[in-house]
Amino acid sequence: MEFRVQLFDVEQGQNEVVLNDSQARELSIGISDRVKMTANRKSVTAIVDLSHEFIRPGEVGVFSEVAQMLSLKQGQKVLLESAERPASLDAVRKKLDGGILDDKEIASIINDLMAEKLSATELAVFISAVYTRGMTTDETVSLTKAIYASGGSLKPKAKVVASEHSIGGVAGDRSSMLIVPIISSLGVCIPKTCSRAISSAAGTADVMEVFCPVSLDLKKMQRVVDKVNACLTWGGAVNMAAADDKMINIRKPLHLDPKPLLLCSILAKKKAEGADYVLLDLPIGRGAKLDNLEKARDLAKDFEALGRMLGMRVQCSITDGSEPLLRTIGPNLEARTVLETLQGKGSYELAEKACVMSGLMLSMLRGLTREEGYKMARHQLASGKALEKFLEIVREQGGNPDVKNADFGLGKYKQAVIAKESGKVGHVDNREISRVCRTLGAPADKAAGMVLKFMKGDKVEAGQVLLELYSGNKEKAAMAARQADKVVEIEKIMIDVV
Amino acid sequence: MEFRVQLFDVEQGQNEVVLNDSQARELSIGISDRVKMTANRKSVTAIVDLSHEFIRPGEVGVFSEVAQMLSLKQGQKVLLESAERPASLDAVRKKLDGGILDDKEIASIINDLMAEKLSATELAVFISAVYTRGMTTDETVSLTKAIYASGGSLKPKAKVVASEHSIGGVAGDRSSMLIVPIISSLGVCIPKTCSRAISSAAGTADVMEVFCPVSLDLKKMQRVVDKVNACLTWGGAVNMAAADDKMINIRKPLHLDPKPLLLCSILAKKKAEGADYVLLDLPIGRGAKLDNLEKARDLAKDFEALGRMLGMRVQCSITDGSEPLLRTIGPNLEARTVLETLQGKGSYELAEKACVMSGLMLSMLRGLTREEGYKMARHQLASGKALEKFLEIVREQGGNPDVKNADFGLGKYKQAVIAKESGKVGHVDNREISRVCRTLGAPADKAAGMVLKFMKGDKVEAGQVLLELYSGNKEKAAMAARQADKVVEIEKIMIDVV
Repeated sequence: MEFRVQLFDVEQGQNEVVLNDSQARELSIGISDRVKMTANRKSVTAIVDLSHEFIRPGEVGVFSEVAQMLSLKQGQKVLLESAERPASLDAVRKKLDGGILDDKEIASIINDLMAEKLSATELAVFISAVYTRGMTTDETVSLTKAIYASGGSLKPKAKVVASEHSIGGVAGDRSSMLIVPIISSLGVCIPKTCSRAISSAAGTADVMEVFCPVSLDLKKMQRVVDKVNACLTWGGAVNMAAADDKMINIRKPLHLDPKPLLLCSILAKKKAEGADYVLLDLPIGRGAKLDNLEKARDLAKDFEALGRMLGMRVQCSITDGSEPLLRTIGPNLEARTVLETLQGKGSYELAEKACVMSGLMLSMLRGLTREEGYKMARHQLASGKALEKFLEIVREQGGNPDVKNADFGLGKYKQAVIAKESGKVGHVDNREISRVCRTLGAPADKAAGMVLKFMKGDKVEAGQVLLELYSGNKEKAAMAARQADKVVEIEKIMIDVV
Repeated sequence: MEFRVQLFDVEQGQNEVVLNDSQARELSIGISDRVKMTANRKSVTAIVDLSHEFIRPGEVGVFSEVAQMLSLKQGQKVLLESAERPASLDAVRKKLDGGILDDKEIASIINDLMAEKLSATELAVFISAVYTRGMTTDETVSLTKAIYASGGSLKPKAKVVASEHSIGGVAGDRSSMLIVPIISSLGVCIPKTCSRAISSAAGTADVMEVFCPVSLDLKKMQRVVDKVNACLTWGGAVNMAAADDKMINIRKPLHLDPKPLLLCSILAKKKAEGADYVLLDLPIGRGAKLDNLEKARDLAKDFEALGRMLGMRVQCSITDGSEPLLRTIGPNLEARTVLETLQGKGSYELAEKACVMSGLMLSMLRGLTREEGYKMARHQLASGKALEKFLEIVREQGGNPDVKNADFGLGKYKQAVIAKESGKVGHVDNREISRVCRTLGAPADKAAGMVLKFMKGDKVEAGQVLLELYSGNKEKAAMAARQADKVVEIEKIMIDVV
C-alpha cells in the first residue's frame, strides 16, 4: 500500500516509522509490528509506532535512520508491506529459555540489530537473557566475532600489533598515554582507541584532546598508525564493534555488566584494532569495578582463554585500584602531569605503573623477563625517547608538538577544602573525586579539576588545605566545595572516649 | 538551563526529548539519561535522545507525551535539569538478580512506568527478569494491585458483580456474547470488557461491533452497566490496568508470557471491572494456548489462589480448544450465528458451551449444583430472555435492537475450497483458520470470513466443497484460497501401499 512521507529529522536509534492509529487498526498493524518500506529502489524493515492526531491516514512519519537509508524526501510516495518477524527473535527467546545458541543464531541477532530489524526493547531482553543465563565460551567467541564484524577495523601494516586497555575506575590513571609512546618508541605498532569519561572527571580521550584532536575516523587513524606506529584516539569516532555501542546504551542505566558482554565488548574492540598481543589492566579494591582478587583472577582467565580462541595472546595485570593514581585530576591538570612525567619529572606513581605495565608487554612481545622489560621501559622514559614519540603522535593527530607545560590553564574560580581534624589519611575516594570534579564542570570544562594535597598514609593537621578545586564557573566551584568533604578520609588515633 | 521547544507531534510511548548531540556532550548528558523538564509550573522526567543535525544547540525536541503534560507551545522556553536515576531501576535490577521484591519496590516499578520515568528498554529487562526468575505469590499479588491501581476502574452499583473471561485461541468462540445476557437476564451484574483480534479472524469486541459501538469510555460503560446490569465493550477504549498495556507491547513480539504476568494481566482487569466472582475459561489441546491438562490445572490453581488474595472468588473451566467452536468464522458470519443461537436456532456447540459455562457461574453465585445452573441457563436461552437482554445491551451501547439476521452481509468475492481426497475429517485447525481469514481481510473487513462445511469426524468425498471463503477484495479472496489447504485435515483409511 502507498503512503506519503512525513519526515521527522530525529534519530531514534532504530528504524522507526509512525502510522495513523485508526488506519493501522484497519490494516491490523499494531505497535512494535514490522513493516517493509520500499522507495527509490531500496527497502528497509522498520518498527511501527502509532500517532493519534499528527499522522493522518495515508501518511507515514519517518525518522532519520529510515529517511537516510532510503534517501526519502518530504511528501514522497513510499510502499509499505507487512514484514516477517525477524528470525533473531527466536534466538533471543531461546537464550531467555536457557538454551545454547550456535554461531548462526548469534550472528542473526547482531545482523538484525545492525539492520535495525531487532528493536531496542528486544535487545534489552537479549541482554537480560545473557545476564541471567550466562554464555558458554563458544557462545562468547561467536558473539565477539559477530560484534567485531559489525563495525570497521584497522589493518595496520605492521606484522605484530600490540594493544593495551584498562577496565578503568581509577582517578588519574593515564598510564596508556605513557605505555603507548614507550612501546611504539621501541618499534612496536600499538594503536590505541580510548574512551571519554562516562561518570569520571576525564577519560584518556578527554585528556589526550588537550594536546590534539582525538575524533579521528578510521581512515585518518589508519594513516597515523601507518606513519608513527601508534595513535591515541577516541573510540567513539570510529565505527569499530558498532553493535557493542547499541548494547552499552541499554546496559548503562541498569549497570548491567554480565561477564560475557564485558569480555566481548573489550576483545571485539581489540580485535578491530588488529591486535595480536593484548595487555589488560584489571584494577581491584574499594570502589574499583572489581572488589577482590579472586574475581579479577577469574576474569583474567576468561580473557586469556577467549583471547586464545580469537587468535590473540592476552595477558592481564591485576593492580591496586582503591586509591587515585595522580594528585592532579581533571583534563588540563592530568595533561600537564602526563607531559611532566614524560619529561622525567611529574608523577612517580604514573611513571612506575606505566613502566611495570610496559615491562609486562615487552616480556610478552620479546621473550624478556618482566624485570628486563621494566628496565627497557624505564630507559625509553629516562632517555626522552618516549616523550619524543608522544609528541610525534600529537603532531600526526593534528596537535602542536611544541606544547609547553604552562599551556594547561586552571579554572579561574578556586576553592580550598580545609582539614577539619588532624590525623592520618586513611583513604582517598575515586568515586567522590569523580562526583566533585563533575560538579566543577569536568570533563567538558577542560580547566576544571582538583589537586589533592594529601594522599593515603600522609599525616595532616586540622586547618591545612586538603584539596584545591578549580572551575570556570563560580557557582560550580562553590557547590563542589560543599560536596567535597568525603573525598579524603582522615583516621583519628582516638576514635572515641567512653 | 533554558532551551527552546521544537515540537514533534508523535507519540513515543514514553517521555522522550531530543537534544543536540554536541551540546549534550558538553553538558555530559548521554543517550538514555534522564532530565527534568519544567514549564508552565509543571515538571516531568524524560529520557534523552540525541540528534546530529535537526536539533540545534539551545533547542530541545519534544514528543507528544511531554508536550501534552506540560502544555508546551512551539518555540516556548523550558528549563532542563539533570534528573535522578529512578529508584525503580534498583528494583528491576534486584529482580534480575533473583531477589524477591516487596510491595513498595513493585509499586515503584509500576508508578515510574506510568510516570514515564522507566523506559521501554528498562521495562523489557523487568519482563525478562520475571520470565527467568518467576515471582512469588506475594509478589504477584503486589504486582496485580499495582497494575490495577495504574488505571481507571468500574464501580458498579450492584452488590455482587460477576465476570467471565477466556484466555482465547479458539476460532468462533463467542460464548461471552451468550453468557453475559444469560447471567444478566437473571438479575446478576456482569460487565464485560472484550478484546479485539490480535492474530485471529475476530475478537469478541470485533463481533460485538457488528451490532453496536464498543469503544465506550469508562463513564459511558459505567452508565450502561448501571442501567442494564451488563455490557460488552472493547477493553482498549477504557483505561483499565493501563500499565498492563505497556507490558503487552513489549511481550508481544517475543511471545513472552511468563505466568505471573499472565495472571496479573487478567486478574487486574477483572478487579478493575469490580468483579467478586470470576469464571475463567482455559481451552486446552492442539494449537490452543495450553497444550495439556496438567498445565491448565496448575494455572487454574494459581488463578484461584491469587484471586482469593485479591478478594475475588475465581473458578476455572478447562475446555477442549483443539477445534473451532463455530462453522462460521469472521465478524459478520459470527455475529449472525450468535444472533441465531440467541433466537434458539444457530449453533448447537455455542449454545451448549455458553449454558455449561453459565451453569458453572450460577453454581458459584447461587449455591446451585452445576446441573441446576445449566438448566437455568438453558431456560433463559429457550424463553428468549437472553435474546431480549442482549438486544437491551445493544440498544444501550448505541446500536439498533431491531437488527435482522439478513443485515450481516458477506464479502462479494467468494471462493470455494474443494476436497482433493475422500476420507474422514481428522482435525480443523484454529491457527490455519486465523491465517486464511486475516488474508481475506478480517477483522477490518467485517464481511470477510469463511464457512466450514465439514467439522472433525465428518465424512467427506473428493470434489465436495470443504470451505467457502468471502472477501470484499478479489485478490485477497484468490490469495486466501491458495493458502487454505491446511485448514481441514482429512484422514485417509489407506495411508500407504507397500
